Amino acid sequence: MKIVCIGSGNVATHMANAFKENEADIVQVWSKDFNNALALAAETGAQAVADLKEIDQDADLYLIAVKDDAIVKVVRALQEVNGLVVHTSGATDMEVLAGIKNYGVFYPLQTFSKAEPIDFIHVPLCLEANSPENLSALRLIAVKLSPLIYEVSTQKRKILHLAGVFACNFVNHMYRLSQQIVEKNEIDFEILRPLIMETAVKVQHALPENVQTGPAIRNDRQTLLKHEELLHKSPHLKEIYAILSNSIKKTR
Amino acid sequence: MKIVCIGSGNVATHMANAFKENEADIVQVWSKDFNNALALAAETGAQAVADLKEIDQDADLYLIAVKDDAIVKVVRALQEVNGLVVHTSGATDMEVLAGIKNYGVFYPLQTFSKAEPIDFIHVPLCLEANSPENLSALRLIAVKLSPLIYEVSTQKRKILHLAGVFACNFVNHMYRLSQQIVEKNEIDFEILRPLIMETAVKVQHALPENVQTGPAIRNDRQTLLKHEELLHKSPHLKEIYAILSNSIKKTR
Repeated sequence: MKIVCIGSGNVATHMANAFKENEADIVQVWSKDFNNALALAAETGAQAVADLKEIDQDADLYLIAVKDDAIVKVVRALQEVNGLVVHTSGATDMEVLAGIKNYGVFYPLQTFSKAEPIDFIHVPLCLEANSPENLSALRLIAVKLSPLIYEVSTQKRKILHLAGVFACNFVNHMYRLSQQIVEKNEIDFEILRPLIMETAVKVQHALPENVQTGPAIRNDRQTLLKHEELLHKSPHLKEIYAILSNSIKKTR
Repeated sequence: MKIVCIGSGNVATHMANAFKENEADIVQVWSKDFNNALALAAETGAQAVADLKEIDQDADLYLIAVKDDAIVKVVRALQEVNGLVVHTSGATDMEVLAGIKNYGVFYPLQTFSKAEPIDFIHVPLCLEANSPENLSALRLIAVKLSPLIYEVSTQKRKILHLAGVFACNFVNHMYRLSQQIVEKNEIDFEILRPLIMETAVKVQHALPENVQTGPAIRNDRQTLLKHEELLHKSPHLKEIYAILSNSIKKTR
């Protein structure tokens, strides 16, 4: 399988490497920053291209992993290809690719950092395509990377993208606020790591609604007051503490 | 080692079982609800006691794991004992035990659910005692359960308890809100579990401030707007989305 990788960010890098490990052939990498294209091309044994016009028209798969607002631009260069063109965005309509013969979406519902290796067996892949045949083709490609394959419409994919902000981005921000609280008091963040891990492990089989703990769900007013007192010099944290505690109380 | 367990909730149950597995002898269990005392006593091979006056005065360790506002009450029954008396609360002064000869705090910084088994090697134990000798004694007891031993003052323990609300209780609430979002759209929560896990795994070596992802940290206004539109029928979620996105933006 010949793949052209369009983009060189976190998602492009992780995907290109995962495909390469699965014996696909990354033939080209394009990026708006040619140096980044060169780097990922070197990593995957591909050719770096500076101009979208140079893109190989005979690849099997075109993987678009650029910023959402740049997708439209690169699509113009792919109007005549026969291969399958997919974007990898959670928030973008599949139909942004309309006009191309064979197209779809290959959305990995996972958080990627360039420096962190990730095993694709833990990456749910959300697939959508413009025909049942292309969906089947995409599925055959996807199962080489991950056992977690989901057929997801554009509408549901957008919902998942939003839910991911709560389940990942806001969660990491909570970690960060806890880091801020302990470090301000000269305590190493390290001591919180087992608690963070266990909290995630718990919902791997249970549902979050069934394992909520803490003073808000018990309506333990004394502890809630003590915590707000501890935060009296941090109005921003105090506000978030109050809002989220009230949000938890509503679920009682 | 002879241990009297005062309390029969999550923490009492997990600790009593952990001590029992480490060949300590749980001699008695007291609880304000005698049926719960009977259950935990049966589980650990102890005697259940209904009246605090019946508590064995010759045990080595008295483990107080009752609700914060009940600690004062049980302390009265332990004024004459020679053994080490510890409470397990994150939010309570050690000095609530003053008057007893040997006392301290044995605070597990972890989330416990009755139905979930937990391996104590992942439970940081925060120790405090009324003398260096008692601290050493407590440390010798603690290392049998966990390698994660910390000496923590009352003041810092209260900070950790507060930080734990952010790192665990608020995090689980974020999981819950993500569950609410997907279920409202007939998507199974299961698809979010790998993302949740990876988010926690990432901060096991990195610091949260270095691995924040998502539209708010990128100040990706288009995506932020799209998400707020998706939430237009859920004003409560929309409010939380806006507040936390702004809080993330402040850290840019």
